[in-house]
Amino acid sequence: MKGYVCGVDLGGTKINTGIMDSNGRIIENIKLPTKAEEGPDAVIERILESIGFVLEKSGIGLKDIRGIGVGSPGPIDAERGIVVKSANLPGWNNVPVVERIKERFPTQVRINNDANAAALGEYKFGSGRGTRNFVYVTVSTGIGGGAIIDGKLYNGANLNAAEIGHTIINFDGPRCNCGSFGCFEAYASGTAIARIACEEIQGGKNTLISSIAGEKPVKAEDVFEAGRKGDELALQIIDREGFYLGIGIANILGFYNPERIAFGGGVSSQLDMFYDKMIETAKSRSLGPSFDACSIVRSELGGDIGLLGAAALVE
Amino acid sequence: MKGYVCGVDLGGTKINTGIMDSNGRIIENIKLPTKAEEGPDAVIERILESIGFVLEKSGIGLKDIRGIGVGSPGPIDAERGIVVKSANLPGWNNVPVVERIKERFPTQVRINNDANAAALGEYKFGSGRGTRNFVYVTVSTGIGGGAIIDGKLYNGANLNAAEIGHTIINFDGPRCNCGSFGCFEAYASGTAIARIACEEIQGGKNTLISSIAGEKPVKAEDVFEAGRKGDELALQIIDREGFYLGIGIANILGFYNPERIAFGGGVSSQLDMFYDKMIETAKSRSLGPSFDACSIVRSELGGDIGLLGAAALVE
Repeated sequence: MKGYVCGVDLGGTKINTGIMDSNGRIIENIKLPTKAEEGPDAVIERILESIGFVLEKSGIGLKDIRGIGVGSPGPIDAERGIVVKSANLPGWNNVPVVERIKERFPTQVRINNDANAAALGEYKFGSGRGTRNFVYVTVSTGIGGGAIIDGKLYNGANLNAAEIGHTIINFDGPRCNCGSFGCFEAYASGTAIARIACEEIQGGKNTLISSIAGEKPVKAEDVFEAGRKGDELALQIIDREGFYLGIGIANILGFYNPERIAFGGGVSSQLDMFYDKMIETAKSRSLGPSFDACSIVRSELGGDIGLLGAAALVE
Repeated sequence: MKGYVCGVDLGGTKINTGIMDSNGRIIENIKLPTKAEEGPDAVIERILESIGFVLEKSGIGLKDIRGIGVGSPGPIDAERGIVVKSANLPGWNNVPVVERIKERFPTQVRINNDANAAALGEYKFGSGRGTRNFVYVTVSTGIGGGAIIDGKLYNGANLNAAEIGHTIINFDGPRCNCGSFGCFEAYASGTAIARIACEEIQGGKNTLISSIAGEKPVKAEDVFEAGRKGDELALQIIDREGFYLGIGIANILGFYNPERIAFGGGVSSQLDMFYDKMIETAKSRSLGPSFDACSIVRSELGGDIGLLGAAALVE
């Protein structure tokens, strides 16, 4: 009985490979360093090794799994099973990951980008269960997302649907890494929180954030830590974060009108600090029926989302 | 053979009812005044009359049509076949349009809001043919839209998907009719064009727009007419229109990553005046692969879109 699935969460620094049952319970997993600097062949060899390891360790044979799913930094060509290139995997150009895995493990093999995989994982195994239209947003260094439409992962024309971080919330806004201006990510990502804090500190604001950061560059975590200690500037920045996320939610509601939106990623772990502001903003900036139809929650999968997302790609 | 469909385009001022063949060719149609002030019962009676008329006039019997589709101002409860209420149809509260039509014409009857119906009509019979993911945007007094996802009209949780006019392109922007600020509609609708022109004229700008409008309030058409005559202010406003629409397109690309976007509505009939600016803005403000995957065109159905959209609702 093919009740198990293998998932490979391929990241820039580590490969997390596991065997899950049909409810998303992790039976066995292993984390290996990616060592991306060794190039695609060496990384793929490590992926194959990790798959072999979890199959053997769990005692679950290839015949017992429905398939292998891979979540990878993109862009990906999901149909052809290729990593087109990746900012986090230097030297990867059109690497046929699916073909290479199938050569060693002849079974269904699927690949998609990590944000889409995470959305599907959260939909199948986490907070998206029981909905038909669901949006997952990850807020950490950047902002990524994925949308489930009518029960299916929505890829769009070429896997660039739900690139929520690079939708515009202020056309006159600051420059974004993508080359555009005023993107959601340029306002609400962890990187943006740190940037805003730096600008304020350089402007001469007195704040705990500086002493928490010390010699190191200011991080979003420092701002949240200062906020928890009652630092006024930090609380203002965190309040703005709630506002920006609320605007982002309003746009998600306007485009997708989903039944649920879930937030994951490092910044979302601090959700309690800006949840009220976020919801209040989303409510006042969106159409009533869309807001009322949607619940806005935190990801349930937490740190397992990469692995479970990869597993969810298998049909 | 059930090759025909009946469509009812219910508007605030007129009812347009027709019989179409399976290719969207209009066999027969009739336009009646809505006379919305007479209330729902009288309007529904006129709808029934118009359906009876086109069936009789065309010689196509009820047995020859697959069903009747109704496009109506919203909000609509499509599943229950009810017009919940409508700004353009005063006194309409939970009117069971589908049930009332079925009593007289026992066949499949579908209803949806006019923007969704238009998107589906353009997809089935116009510029959306041959795509899987398609977005239709109407730019006139307001901005409306509809999305086809994976070949199906995307309704969302409660028919509020693709409310593109009320997504935010500048969170610090001007107040919108919906109560929010900086909505796409507040910048790029015909109403917004007229408002911007008025503000400039009141600010003392010398322009042909004033003399074209004369005693009447300035309309978007006046701005386009002045622009065609080389008026500098008008050309600046039209250039901004291209910019705002380009930002809107960038967001549509970011959320939906469609293969095609089509523009309809009165302002879009002037598309040649701002197409280049619009495309240039969309390109510089969106992710390359999404932009490259999408063609941006004008609606092919023009004035027939209401009727063909209603017809397209029938399965």
